[in-house]
Amino acid sequence: MDKPQEECGVLGIWGEAPLDAAGLLHLGLLALQHRGQEAAGIAVSDGKELLVEKDLGLVNQVFTEERLQRLRRLEARLGLAHARYSTTGSNLRFNAQPLTARTAHGVLAIVHNGNFTNAKPLRDRLLREGATFQSTTDTEVMLLLLARLGHLPLPQAAAEAMRVLEGGYSILLMDRQRLVALRDPHGVRPLAIGRLPQGYAFASEPPALALMGAEYLRDVRPGEVVWVEGDRLESAQVLPPSPTPCAFEWIYFARPDSLLDGVEAYEARVRMGMELFREAPAAADIVVPVPDSGMGAAVGYARSSGLPLEYGLYKNPYAGRTFIQPTQELRDLKTRLKLAPTSAVRGKRVVLIDDSIVRGTTSRRIVGMLREAGAREVHFRVSSPPIRFPCYYGIDTAARKELIAAEKSVEEIRAYIGADTLAFLSEEGVRRAIGGPVCLACFNGRYPAGVPGDREGEKLALEAI
Amino acid sequence: MDKPQEECGVLGIWGEAPLDAAGLLHLGLLALQHRGQEAAGIAVSDGKELLVEKDLGLVNQVFTEERLQRLRRLEARLGLAHARYSTTGSNLRFNAQPLTARTAHGVLAIVHNGNFTNAKPLRDRLLREGATFQSTTDTEVMLLLLARLGHLPLPQAAAEAMRVLEGGYSILLMDRQRLVALRDPHGVRPLAIGRLPQGYAFASEPPALALMGAEYLRDVRPGEVVWVEGDRLESAQVLPPSPTPCAFEWIYFARPDSLLDGVEAYEARVRMGMELFREAPAAADIVVPVPDSGMGAAVGYARSSGLPLEYGLYKNPYAGRTFIQPTQELRDLKTRLKLAPTSAVRGKRVVLIDDSIVRGTTSRRIVGMLREAGAREVHFRVSSPPIRFPCYYGIDTAARKELIAAEKSVEEIRAYIGADTLAFLSEEGVRRAIGGPVCLACFNGRYPAGVPGDREGEKLALEAI
Amino acid sequence: MDKPQEECGVLGIWGEAPLDAAGLLHLGLLALQHRGQEAAGIAVSDGKELLVEKDLGLVNQVFTEERLQRLRRLEARLGLAHARYSTTGSNLRFNAQPLTARTAHGVLAIVHNGNFTNAKPLRDRLLREGATFQSTTDTEVMLLLLARLGHLPLPQAAAEAMRVLEGGYSILLMDRQRLVALRDPHGVRPLAIGRLPQGYAFASEPPALALMGAEYLRDVRPGEVVWVEGDRLESAQVLPPSPTPCAFEWIYFARPDSLLDGVEAYEARVRMGMELFREAPAAADIVVPVPDSGMGAAVGYARSSGLPLEYGLYKNPYAGRTFIQPTQELRDLKTRLKLAPTSAVRGKRVVLIDDSIVRGTTSRRIVGMLREAGAREVHFRVSSPPIRFPCYYGIDTAARKELIAAEKSVEEIRAYIGADTLAFLSEEGVRRAIGGPVCLACFNGRYPAGVPGDREGEKLALEAI
Amino acid sequence: MDKPQEECGVLGIWGEAPLDAAGLLHLGLLALQHRGQEAAGIAVSDGKELLVEKDLGLVNQVFTEERLQRLRRLEARLGLAHARYSTTGSNLRFNAQPLTARTAHGVLAIVHNGNFTNAKPLRDRLLREGATFQSTTDTEVMLLLLARLGHLPLPQAAAEAMRVLEGGYSILLMDRQRLVALRDPHGVRPLAIGRLPQGYAFASEPPALALMGAEYLRDVRPGEVVWVEGDRLESAQVLPPSPTPCAFEWIYFARPDSLLDGVEAYEARVRMGMELFREAPAAADIVVPVPDSGMGAAVGYARSSGLPLEYGLYKNPYAGRTFIQPTQELRDLKTRLKLAPTSAVRGKRVVLIDDSIVRGTTSRRIVGMLREAGAREVHFRVSSPPIRFPCYYGIDTAARKELIAAEKSVEEIRAYIGADTLAFLSEEGVRRAIGGPVCLACFNGRYPAGVPGDREGEKLALEAI
Repeated sequence: MDKPQEECGVLGIWGEAPLDAAGLLHLGLLALQHRGQEAAGIAVSDGKELLVEKDLGLVNQVFTEERLQRLRRLEARLGLAHARYSTTGSNLRFNAQPLTARTAHGVLAIVHNGNFTNAKPLRDRLLREGATFQSTTDTEVMLLLLARLGHLPLPQAAAEAMRVLEGGYSILLMDRQRLVALRDPHGVRPLAIGRLPQGYAFASEPPALALMGAEYLRDVRPGEVVWVEGDRLESAQVLPPSPTPCAFEWIYFARPDSLLDGVEAYEARVRMGMELFREAPAAADIVVPVPDSGMGAAVGYARSSGLPLEYGLYKNPYAGRTFIQPTQELRDLKTRLKLAPTSAVRGKRVVLIDDSIVRGTTSRRIVGMLREAGAREVHFRVSSPPIRFPCYYGIDTAARKELIAAEKSVEEIRAYIGADTLAFLSEEGVRRAIGGPVCLACFNGRYPAGVPGDREGEKLALEAI
Repeated sequence: MDKPQEECGVLGIWGEAPLDAAGLLHLGLLALQHRGQEAAGIAVSDGKELLVEKDLGLVNQVFTEERLQRLRRLEARLGLAHARYSTTGSNLRFNAQPLTARTAHGVLAIVHNGNFTNAKPLRDRLLREGATFQSTTDTEVMLLLLARLGHLPLPQAAAEAMRVLEGGYSILLMDRQRLVALRDPHGVRPLAIGRLPQGYAFASEPPALALMGAEYLRDVRPGEVVWVEGDRLESAQVLPPSPTPCAFEWIYFARPDSLLDGVEAYEARVRMGMELFREAPAAADIVVPVPDSGMGAAVGYARSSGLPLEYGLYKNPYAGRTFIQPTQELRDLKTRLKLAPTSAVRGKRVVLIDDSIVRGTTSRRIVGMLREAGAREVHFRVSSPPIRFPCYYGIDTAARKELIAAEKSVEEIRAYIGADTLAFLSEEGVRRAIGGPVCLACFNGRYPAGVPGDREGEKLALEAI
Repeated sequence: MDKPQEECGVLGIWGEAPLDAAGLLHLGLLALQHRGQEAAGIAVSDGKELLVEKDLGLVNQVFTEERLQRLRRLEARLGLAHARYSTTGSNLRFNAQPLTARTAHGVLAIVHNGNFTNAKPLRDRLLREGATFQSTTDTEVMLLLLARLGHLPLPQAAAEAMRVLEGGYSILLMDRQRLVALRDPHGVRPLAIGRLPQGYAFASEPPALALMGAEYLRDVRPGEVVWVEGDRLESAQVLPPSPTPCAFEWIYFARPDSLLDGVEAYEARVRMGMELFREAPAAADIVVPVPDSGMGAAVGYARSSGLPLEYGLYKNPYAGRTFIQPTQELRDLKTRLKLAPTSAVRGKRVVLIDDSIVRGTTSRRIVGMLREAGAREVHFRVSSPPIRFPCYYGIDTAARKELIAAEKSVEEIRAYIGADTLAFLSEEGVRRAIGGPVCLACFNGRYPAGVPGDREGEKLALEAI
Repeated sequence: MDKPQEECGVLGIWGEAPLDAAGLLHLGLLALQHRGQEAAGIAVSDGKELLVEKDLGLVNQVFTEERLQRLRRLEARLGLAHARYSTTGSNLRFNAQPLTARTAHGVLAIVHNGNFTNAKPLRDRLLREGATFQSTTDTEVMLLLLARLGHLPLPQAAAEAMRVLEGGYSILLMDRQRLVALRDPHGVRPLAIGRLPQGYAFASEPPALALMGAEYLRDVRPGEVVWVEGDRLESAQVLPPSPTPCAFEWIYFARPDSLLDGVEAYEARVRMGMELFREAPAAADIVVPVPDSGMGAAVGYARSSGLPLEYGLYKNPYAGRTFIQPTQELRDLKTRLKLAPTSAVRGKRVVLIDDSIVRGTTSRRIVGMLREAGAREVHFRVSSPPIRFPCYYGIDTAARKELIAAEKSVEEIRAYIGADTLAFLSEEGVRRAIGGPVCLACFNGRYPAGVPGDREGEKLALEAI
């Protein structure tokens, strides 16, 4: 898909008494599936045993009835879950999360959304000291650091590890009894806390809390470690907060019904559409969203412009995951499988609204489709600025050389995608729509949480040892 | 799902020279998946062999790479495909289509959308005469009739069978060389013809033609038999046409980008929304569609009313097919999995638009959800009349006793679903929006193509022999 | 495998009260797996429903726990089962048995061991009369005949069908209440009856009766129809018996612990070995059986000759079913996978005993292996005559042109396989060892139960319609 | 199965040029399947990447064509393989081998047959020092030791690890270029070296070398480390040899065509049978082996006694792996599935020969079966002494309290199994038959390679951390 790819969603649950941790985490994962579709995993414990099931695939492919039954063998009280978008090849099953290790703390499990920018030098040092790694993820570096802090209780060990790790990350950790949540001092990735009748839940986005039967309580604060002690939520502000949450969560990633650091995703998107009209009005007949990513901004654009919103593009809900077709003919035909124009656009001047342009190939196809279907003009409006820089905090924005805006001017992009006019929302417009300090590094190259020493490996993938 | 269920989508392809029939039919099936999600099948032939692959499940579950490869063993020139919604239990693999039989014509394959209302007496007679059946479908009755007409060429045999069969049906037939299409004299179910560079294609809806690389040519006419002879399309008007196509195709079933008997589905839906406002305006702040079924009508309602359209409900695209959860707690939580309210509805008077109400349970849950999310008022508007009667022509409208409108008045329904006001579009409004004679039997009980002698078996399922 | 292939094993069970028909038939099938390894199936009924599960593969591959559970949904009172060796390609799933059809008798299921020699003309006539076939098996012809005899009770209909069908066959039939067994007038294929505490069982070989908890009662007689009426076993001698049971059952097919028409397989094999020594003694040090087919005859040869029996060949029990290797190197190495010589043969003059030679390729490899392992001389002794003719009664003896003895003299065979001496047991020797009239058609071309009119299709496979 | 269970078979291959390592190791594994049937795995490398595929199940279940293809993606030059019998529960997929870890040596893979008796204290120390473990196997302890010796070349690191590890073990190690083999100073478990045209192979038993196209060269010596440097085999005698190879390899585990430390398994078994007759003759008519374990000894017993060898028990080759039946009735019937008596025993005084008795339950069933089949007397002869002690070197002899001979006298065992007479071969008899110093610890409790400090965990399983 020609969209920036989130690298993960994380979930945790902790109950005073046994609860159906596997079932609740499974539901929660389905609510976070949009954050990662390449692997899924759940770990649960009853205080004595800790079981993990994970595999490549969508949540519903990985969690067959049989696999859930295996987890349900335990009368679990706590657990973690993970939905993953991995950037380095589909056969790397060993990189699926939760990662686990048997350590002086006992067995530990970890799930992670984000990236450590200093994972490589840390890993090199650990290897020289005799460590063994099972995966090529930066996540495992934290697990190894924790193993070396076996003399400390788990929350304190996590706090010590935070002082060493750099980057943007939201993490959940567990052993057989305890659950620990932590968020980097910039709060780049989201992490919300929910209250259960007799326990607590954690999730990348609040709608997943609701699916686990939890009520939204608050977000984990930047730089904070949170854990459950007895039946109380304990907290330590380990590092001073300096919040710059990722703007892309509001632009595209988060569900429209998510509340992130106090700001509703749907409202922010509508405001982006309104700002977009203010900055770049178009003389047109109808507003057409690219489903589903452009829908919130299209509402805002329609509201400000007074133009009618029309469903000019049909999105086939069954197009999802089809394997690659062997012939060029089939591949060409397949472009019509996912999106198809409706009669709404015939003879119309269309304002087409999308949230972002990454490679430009899909945008080009959509513009072509609309023209074939009889649209008289196509005015492309994008509710975020051009993406020009890689993200080092957990998003795969495609390799820099594939970013159309890293290489081309707005006019060149317009010509490539074949629109009559093209405009992007300004950084200032994004900031106003969200209403607070945010990370805009992928647009402006200013990285609030540091960059890897070695800039070459743009995706931060640790090379195989 | 609490919606009327279409019983099938059908596809056919015929080329002068070999073409990738399996690959093209697979793409076409993905474009018709909305018409049937319980079983899928493809038959192809190279003029010498005829291969069939079919199974219970979604198209992408049934057609793994391995299964497509088995079909691709042939350099096929023609083929059929089927997506099925079956009403009689998930383990009936032998009812999946294409059905095949070895007969005096050679091997025959058949796919079918619709129902024969006189299947039972025909089957009883055939059994007494020594026939053997493999399935409990009415479709097989036609196959048996064809076997008895082995002295006639296939198109003529099909025409003879049409004179005997009653009901609403669109059918595609093949032997190893020929493809034959037929549509009942009332044209209850749709069937479109497309032209390939060197051949022809057939599909329940035109968007599936595009996926097979074919250009829409025309619809098969009510009462017509169409076949390919040499490289020419041949036709015979076997029975006098008396067109009353199913209104529900425009109301709900067909894709919004479908053109059926000359009328665009999207335009018809927008007009239904406009009629609905004219008939039942509401004092409100925003128009919210139930995604995705209410979207077209919501555009029309917003257009006529001047109220803004807002995405007040988020539909999780990954909620699709989750197996049934074992505990009541999980089942309750799961109702939030598929649809969740966004912040758009908070403090608002909402006009909620859907295409129909079958059992009312989902509508009730949605209204409740909107209120919990802070909607001040909920005015429910339905872009079709109350469903009160069973369909005998290929749609499963739920058993009559489950139809909320068969038992309750509009006011009683309103009270049940908890809306502030409720209104349904009138039959006249539907007719005006579509613009021609249509079958409205599920609303008014007037059946243009006859009814089964035995009214008890509401679903026309042939009891097991 | 370079051995004649049996085409099937059949099983049936009938209880006065519900019994675990699926479980018992599954165990019985495992005891008959040697008779057919390409497909397996079970049908059961509780008097109201009839369920079938079948697929390509070994019994344990087909009957997963899940599939057995599906059958166990019924509280079954009766059922059939089949293990199949098919001769016409592994993808023909639709030829797996039990075959079923819905007829004027209700639903019927059938399993079959043997072949009808007049299947083709019968099928051609039925097709002309409008019949439909689902498979390309001769078995289905009987099903169609029964459908035409719907006015008769099932046992009488079966008797009528027997008068029309020619060839060698043992058949079990069921509808939802009744079980019927029949055996051709020559009794070519075996069929035994067993008594359950409250019911009856049928099986191709008595050891399968034991696995179903039944005690061996007697064999179905040649030309007899047997069925259960009330709780009594009923019988009709439909055709005059003229018994010539297949000699190969004693030579190779049947389990060594089987009792067939009153003669123990193990004893017959030992006597064949004794006859073989009498006819063809060898000056040697040790007797080595080819495991497992030569083991009984080796005991007899050792007994008569006074030479010690040694395990000179190890058979790897895990070599079974490995998919075909992609390189010639691996295929060559693989010949040592199944059989490997032990140190017993080093420096020895070996009498190597096998039951038969079909293509000669395996025999040649074994002789070569023994010489490499240090055997000084290899005297090959075969406990049956050279196979020169096809079987028309249910055994795949390889196409005639692949039969080494159809083309070559005994001396030429000896030279090909590289043995120092070679001898086959005489027809007279076989007859003496078994002790009664037997079918020896594959050795001498005298077919007691007729031949197909069309001799070309040596395997009797019905060409695709 | 009521037999001592070997814990593993190991394989390695190394070529100067690319060879089909995955295909050759797959064939080799099939030749070692008898050493472990619960999990299988293969690791291969082309010098740059190292791939592993492993899972629970038989070799042919784990290595589907798809999985082999994944390994064949590399043009591999070297690789390892493992067939595992695990003692601690079937769901422990993470304990399947090869185990791998990314270390300062790069990625390492290891396979292991045997046990380290000091694994627990070593692991405890490593954990305190911050190590992380992925499995609960003792094998991983060696991997961790190697990671700490990253400053040494791999063969030297392996030698250092050997100085620390105690117990009985044969191990193969690899990184992306090198293959290293090692065997404990007592040579408890076997390990043979083979020569390829351009490379070397290693295997637990020589017949597996043949399957990989290698010629048997010699055994790895007790206490030796062997590796390939350039194209030469290098060796270091790290610890002084004190050979006491496991007697059970000759008694039961090894294939009959194996040559272990210079002694043929088949010959040793025949001599055990001869010794057994000398020590415990029986007045009988026939000698019947329990297939397949008693076959070699039965030949020896028959040879010395002059009694004829008969196949009195049929072993169903398809009985292998059937899932557990749900009812007691089926479980009872199932005992006849695997073994069934033939007519050979009727009216006879039988000497029944088996290699060992562990729990006695199977022996009891066999004796009962023979009597039911008409045997007049059953004289049970066992070609090894009573097993009274656990093995700490890689064999699962069942928990001590389940060993019938740990609790009962020979006379009590005889009474339990229902034989007329019972005799076991003496330790001295075993030693004479093999002809050298051997480990007889499971018979006499004298452990040549030490015992775990903590005797409680009889199976050496490391408890979960």
